[in-house]
Amino acid sequence: MIKNNIDLLKRGTEEIIPLEEFHKKIEKSERENRPLIVKSGFDPSAPDIHLGHTVLLRKMKHFQDMGHTVVFLIGDFTGMIGDPSGRSTTRKRLTREEVLENAETYKKQVFKILDREKTDVRFNSNWCASMTFSDVLGLTAKYNVARMLERDDFEKRYKSGVPISILEFMYPLVQGYDSVMLKADIELGGTDQKFNLLVGRDLQREYGQEPQVIMTVPLLVGLDGEQKMSKSLNNYIGINEPPKEIFGKVMSISDDLMFTYYEMVTDIPMDEVEAMRSGIRDGSVHPKDVKVRLGKEICAQFYDRDTAEKAAQEFNKIFVKKDIPDEIEGYSLSEDEYESGKIWIVKLLVLTGMAKSNGEGRRLVQGGGVSFNGEKIVGEDFELNSPVKGILKVGKRRFVKING
Amino acid sequence: MIKNNIDLLKRGTEEIIPLEEFHKKIEKSERENRPLIVKSGFDPSAPDIHLGHTVLLRKMKHFQDMGHTVVFLIGDFTGMIGDPSGRSTTRKRLTREEVLENAETYKKQVFKILDREKTDVRFNSNWCASMTFSDVLGLTAKYNVARMLERDDFEKRYKSGVPISILEFMYPLVQGYDSVMLKADIELGGTDQKFNLLVGRDLQREYGQEPQVIMTVPLLVGLDGEQKMSKSLNNYIGINEPPKEIFGKVMSISDDLMFTYYEMVTDIPMDEVEAMRSGIRDGSVHPKDVKVRLGKEICAQFYDRDTAEKAAQEFNKIFVKKDIPDEIEGYSLSEDEYESGKIWIVKLLVLTGMAKSNGEGRRLVQGGGVSFNGEKIVGEDFELNSPVKGILKVGKRRFVKING
Repeated sequence: MIKNNIDLLKRGTEEIIPLEEFHKKIEKSERENRPLIVKSGFDPSAPDIHLGHTVLLRKMKHFQDMGHTVVFLIGDFTGMIGDPSGRSTTRKRLTREEVLENAETYKKQVFKILDREKTDVRFNSNWCASMTFSDVLGLTAKYNVARMLERDDFEKRYKSGVPISILEFMYPLVQGYDSVMLKADIELGGTDQKFNLLVGRDLQREYGQEPQVIMTVPLLVGLDGEQKMSKSLNNYIGINEPPKEIFGKVMSISDDLMFTYYEMVTDIPMDEVEAMRSGIRDGSVHPKDVKVRLGKEICAQFYDRDTAEKAAQEFNKIFVKKDIPDEIEGYSLSEDEYESGKIWIVKLLVLTGMAKSNGEGRRLVQGGGVSFNGEKIVGEDFELNSPVKGILKVGKRRFVKING
Repeated sequence: MIKNNIDLLKRGTEEIIPLEEFHKKIEKSERENRPLIVKSGFDPSAPDIHLGHTVLLRKMKHFQDMGHTVVFLIGDFTGMIGDPSGRSTTRKRLTREEVLENAETYKKQVFKILDREKTDVRFNSNWCASMTFSDVLGLTAKYNVARMLERDDFEKRYKSGVPISILEFMYPLVQGYDSVMLKADIELGGTDQKFNLLVGRDLQREYGQEPQVIMTVPLLVGLDGEQKMSKSLNNYIGINEPPKEIFGKVMSISDDLMFTYYEMVTDIPMDEVEAMRSGIRDGSVHPKDVKVRLGKEICAQFYDRDTAEKAAQEFNKIFVKKDIPDEIEGYSLSEDEYESGKIWIVKLLVLTGMAKSNGEGRRLVQGGGVSFNGEKIVGEDFELNSPVKGILKVGKRRFVKING
């Protein structure tokens, strides 16, 4: 039974092209009770999913919840080829085994968001691997060079003389051909995929199909509030991180970013979100409470409400209830203060001035009055792993913030 | 046994790239007594060979006579695909049967020039048809877009906004890959093929082979002395035409063009050719004799010396010995003077003024005094087929030249 919620589908999207076709397809699906085929492609080489990826996954989930057929397409064919071209010289050729392994890793993660029963996981090697040279030539006949060179990055590279391998022209064709094979009604992707998604539209038309509507979602900004969320920039929330970590990371973002996250990675109705925003503005709502709610919402998506609640309470217990002063002195460890990536707790106490000597440091630990991030340190031989980040507490009132 | 004649190999070529590598390969082949692999590709869709094509075939023959391995490559794979792109919308997709049939037609013709026993006829479908999509992607990784767009016609079309299908990028790649598969040492082609031949060089290098040397030959000018020889321009000498036709057509070319033909489609040593040229200049040699020699040379290539000699004698008998005046009045028949593509000899006599009435015309024919192109007309009901071209003679001294 198809029951669409157009506002929810459109929420947080960057572009829907063309919008009128989107409305037509959506209306028709409900009228005829025919699920739309909603495609989204994933690169098999990077199965480490973080909150940024969930923007797209959640959009898929919206379609799924409304009764549509969601295709989680793993681009294993191209992944097994590797890409020796300019931009990504380091891109690795994957073996069949690696692809399947990555697919399993993917599934473990994405089914925290998508409904396992309702998700059609497909591999494009299913149709690509058996294509002959003739078939490929037939495909290449359907698209032209000038239009391919209109893709932003291609155009820039062509104009500035940076080589574009002809192979790179094949990727958008493969991606578009996937839409043909799946008879996709809608394809979802990041804004950086816009061109490729449009190629799918064109190819479907060339193959006599009704062209797909494309929907793009913006890239989620990372915890730093500046750059896109990515593992390599270490400004991410991994969906497999422990609840406490997820909650804590959300609590670290700015108040501005908080509302972007509300829109893009929660389903809290937008009028409620707006009410919170104006509440903060007129002083009737405390920003911390709004952030706590966001932290619990996100945490609950990857675990459940109870776990999220516990993570919030624990955070509260350590960082709020235990009277940590707002202003704590900070201490930054230098590389050479670690030994083999570790630091001895007693050494840390001396370095930060919490103990005057190793002897005093040992006694403080033995007395049970030393804790790190709320965990009591047991045993004077205890070592902390680099980078050490968090609150070191001695007795009831002495704190120092270790910045790694 | 390799025995090279470098001057003969270079004769009539437009470019040899790079020349120093050519010399190296040639010298090495003789030193090591290892035949070079000399490749030349042919389009399976146009198997009607004329004198223009023989420029290339003769170059192949030179290599063959010196002991090298000549590969006559039929591009059947691409021919079976057809080319739906801009330039050649009418290019037909060939079936496997048509390709084989065309190949047979080709062979019948080219073995008038090439040595059947020493020619390696190959089809590129042999390796292309079994290539998978992965293989093709591997191939496309070896060449880049900017370089492809340097090809003259691509560059012009790209700049002027005329679409280039991505398929068209694949053709030079296939052609180049053929060189890889054949491990070609030298590839021959027309000047219009220069870019594609160079792609072969690049691809061989990419696949770790010693790159081929490319040799281009110019397009032969047609009988009109202006445009390239082609069937559609009707300025050609077909190699399957009767000896008399071939000889007659050669006799119709200008004195200037005669020397181009000497260089490009005969093996008469160039110093002899130069001697004839200066002989004409100083008046010691009659141009007609030089042209008769050329006619016999060309005719002998497709038949034999005896047949060529007979064709020359017959021509002489009709056009020279029988005292046809240099200046003969001409008569051009109009479409509506033919009936169902034929014209009655008596009507022709009246139209041209050779007879004053049908009655006189009939009597002239009955008297045996009417001939056309040296053949006596027998029977007053005789009809000539459209277009009627040649000399109509009545009695011993009356001529009219019918121009069709």
